[in-house]
Amino acid sequence: MADEEEEVERDGSGSSGGTNSGSGGDGAGWLRPMDAEQLRECGHRMVDFVADYYKSIETFPVLSQVQPGYLKELLPDTAPSKPDTLEALFDDIREKIVPGVTHWQSPNYFAYYPSNSSTAGFLGEMLSAAFNIVGFSWITSPAATELEVIVLDWFAKMLRLPSQFLSTALGGGVIQGTASESVLVVLLAARDRTLRKHGKTSLEKLVVYASDQTHSALQKACQIAGIFPENVRLVKADFDKNYAVAPLAISDAIATDLSSGLIPFFICATVGTTSSSAVDPLPELGQIAKANNMWLHIDAAYAGSACICPEYRHYLNGVEEADSFNMNAHKWFLTNFDCSLLWVKDRSYLIQSLSTNPEFLKNKASQENSVFDFKDWQIPLGRRFRSLKLWMVLRLYGVDNLQSHIRKHIELAKHFEQLVISDSRFEVVTPRTFSLVCFRLVPLASDQDNGRKLNYDLMDAANSSGKIFISHTILSGKFVLRFAVGAPLTEEQHINAAWKILQDLATKQLLGSP
Amino acid sequence: MADEEEEVERDGSGSSGGTNSGSGGDGAGWLRPMDAEQLRECGHRMVDFVADYYKSIETFPVLSQVQPGYLKELLPDTAPSKPDTLEALFDDIREKIVPGVTHWQSPNYFAYYPSNSSTAGFLGEMLSAAFNIVGFSWITSPAATELEVIVLDWFAKMLRLPSQFLSTALGGGVIQGTASESVLVVLLAARDRTLRKHGKTSLEKLVVYASDQTHSALQKACQIAGIFPENVRLVKADFDKNYAVAPLAISDAIATDLSSGLIPFFICATVGTTSSSAVDPLPELGQIAKANNMWLHIDAAYAGSACICPEYRHYLNGVEEADSFNMNAHKWFLTNFDCSLLWVKDRSYLIQSLSTNPEFLKNKASQENSVFDFKDWQIPLGRRFRSLKLWMVLRLYGVDNLQSHIRKHIELAKHFEQLVISDSRFEVVTPRTFSLVCFRLVPLASDQDNGRKLNYDLMDAANSSGKIFISHTILSGKFVLRFAVGAPLTEEQHINAAWKILQDLATKQLLGSP
Repeated sequence: MADEEEEVERDGSGSSGGTNSGSGGDGAGWLRPMDAEQLRECGHRMVDFVADYYKSIETFPVLSQVQPGYLKELLPDTAPSKPDTLEALFDDIREKIVPGVTHWQSPNYFAYYPSNSSTAGFLGEMLSAAFNIVGFSWITSPAATELEVIVLDWFAKMLRLPSQFLSTALGGGVIQGTASESVLVVLLAARDRTLRKHGKTSLEKLVVYASDQTHSALQKACQIAGIFPENVRLVKADFDKNYAVAPLAISDAIATDLSSGLIPFFICATVGTTSSSAVDPLPELGQIAKANNMWLHIDAAYAGSACICPEYRHYLNGVEEADSFNMNAHKWFLTNFDCSLLWVKDRSYLIQSLSTNPEFLKNKASQENSVFDFKDWQIPLGRRFRSLKLWMVLRLYGVDNLQSHIRKHIELAKHFEQLVISDSRFEVVTPRTFSLVCFRLVPLASDQDNGRKLNYDLMDAANSSGKIFISHTILSGKFVLRFAVGAPLTEEQHINAAWKILQDLATKQLLGSP
Repeated sequence: MADEEEEVERDGSGSSGGTNSGSGGDGAGWLRPMDAEQLRECGHRMVDFVADYYKSIETFPVLSQVQPGYLKELLPDTAPSKPDTLEALFDDIREKIVPGVTHWQSPNYFAYYPSNSSTAGFLGEMLSAAFNIVGFSWITSPAATELEVIVLDWFAKMLRLPSQFLSTALGGGVIQGTASESVLVVLLAARDRTLRKHGKTSLEKLVVYASDQTHSALQKACQIAGIFPENVRLVKADFDKNYAVAPLAISDAIATDLSSGLIPFFICATVGTTSSSAVDPLPELGQIAKANNMWLHIDAAYAGSACICPEYRHYLNGVEEADSFNMNAHKWFLTNFDCSLLWVKDRSYLIQSLSTNPEFLKNKASQENSVFDFKDWQIPLGRRFRSLKLWMVLRLYGVDNLQSHIRKHIELAKHFEQLVISDSRFEVVTPRTFSLVCFRLVPLASDQDNGRKLNYDLMDAANSSGKIFISHTILSGKFVLRFAVGAPLTEEQHINAAWKILQDLATKQLLGSP
């Protein structure tokens, strides 16, 4: 293709002829924006590039080691006037882009929570990009809407969600981009339901409740929705309950607010908090929400995946009283980012808050109300055909294997937990529930104040080595290391190697401390 | 692969062994979620599937002809326990999914506005799906943030945006999912800027201004942000100015609101409205915004692409006074959906409205403020590596060819406009500006009231034929047909064929009318 570089169409004067739609690599010019044979040739080359990337993924530092501003030094200041070759692009990707990539799919990635790619998910993304539809309404590609409805009903059954969450009842599931968008859309639905009752000038009285372990997405959603910052109650989670929230703390806060004339309207519960995988007591929070006519949202973004296994399903007990439930298939379910699954018990609340119906989008199917138009269930108008990848993951792996995928990672996390326990210099900070282990290096008795520095330095040294990537949080004032298992390529050997790195660094660290 | 179906790993009991990470199609079981050789094999098959799809795209009805609920009849009620083969999946895609796809990439697609795919864009989506990073902060993949900054600076220079919009000044560009999200985030930034000045209980006094031709995304953004519905002024656009808004109508509305004690804070101007590609008078609206200390946002989602050509750049004159500017690379710029480009003049307003900084995301680079963390410029936390595809489009096509791409479609639209003009049974309803032609079949003198039915039936017949897909709008009470040129494969022959279909149907239609 390199020798085609100089043969691009120079006629920029507005020709409407067909010279750009040639039939392949015949030197007729590069700009054939969607020529099937050119797509085939280039697509095969990209597949090989990607397969080679995965083959060599362990050779890269898992956390990118570049310095801020590195790429500006390597790329020109303006867009090129003339086309470049695919070969030149691949060279730049290898030399300039890959060094700046943090390899989320590396088997040595243990930071945050996982973001699973898989062959099935990747194929789904390819097909979705190929159709490149903008599926705001049913008519724009009926398969996109209908497959999403079907696959989310499948998933609701896998999770044994109450039947009200199915599309055949008054509820239904929808794919959002992220858990942030999921909590935002239900917060808006709940806000507007409450304002319709109390009047729209009541916004300043609306109060939201959650644990202080709730993901920051809730707080951001409140900012967006105009909830007053002082009306967001982030109740201190219960140390004795492994950082789950105490229902009494929530109900006390509600009682206080009611007596002040405020309007409690929304509770966000979490199954698998970001810091430590804590599970809030759903049945009790459900009772509180019901008694106060409040919306209960359950954020199971990470741990929801585990609940497809019968032995973990009990963590969802109490979901019966929830108004909405969210889990991210893009975290730990082999479905490429983004794919956040949201179910609601009564879809009409979403639609009342988020629908628009301009003339230019009207069509028979929508006007007859015989179809779902998912534009009315989400923030944006346009949406990608994301159900394809989820469908392909379910079809190509099957539920049994997906359960194995989850169980394997939980076993690996148990194994890591045992390794930590077996070394008295470390401690497990809060009991492991799923595939996350929260641990730390215990400061010497003579130097208790040094826990933060000790563990920060350990993390920094581990991450700077490029060999593993872990992250941190703070629990009860302690700086805690997070080791989250869940990358698709992670095997026992990677766990053992990671532990060896941490042990060796700890030895240096403790020797280095006075 | 079919014969591997029965050989899946049956051990669901929690083995942490390495049996799933075999090295290819050796029958060791299907579930090797990210095995490089399996990815290679399956990826090549998908590339061929996609290339064959594009090769045969004209054989499918461009608008899907399925009935609501069609897919439920074809798929099972629950997810499969056991994995299926890729071959079975391809069969299902061909037989069950493709019939439900509306082919946005068909050369006979003229509805709404285009949504361009291209080989370069497709390759970018593949690579982005392969890395599968979640780029909320710089550290999560420095290349993702830095390439986005660089490419949006390139693009700003291509559009000759004022230098304040560059990342090197106080502004900068960011990729949002859609124009809906772009207008929402700047509305929130403007809302909060105003509330900081006037007090947060002033929300009920905030007023937004735009033309009634503005995209419905603005109204939805107002709903989300809590702007009172009665404070959204959609001023009637000026028929005499081809549906651009009259600045006087906006300034009059502002004066009235000011005298009522309300707080005008936001103007949304459009370059290329959805109904008819109207261009609002930016310089005058800029003066009004400045005089009243209001935020001016420019929505050039569709027509922004044309402004990379010097001869169309004048449509952006006045952008100097704007606070934010948006165009969608995923519409008419060969970049796969989603890729909405937003620039702001002062990024601090976005960040003040949208930032969160939880402990678990803290890291050295972010704490030192030496990098951009795009999570603070958008609604969601997570984000895909979308700059890759835009970079690849710019690199593989080059600016000169991209200008040709635009010019070619505008020429084709001019050609269609001439065809309409040459047939006295039709009229062009408002002069063409870019690649959209608004036209209609003129009702007979004896039957003026029949314009809606006549044109609706013409559109319905054309779309039901499966041969072309056009859409409609209403302008000054008239039902108007929209013919938007812009699909990457569209050539003059497709325009001529589409016109022939419309003419033939019109003949039948008019003969059929009493």
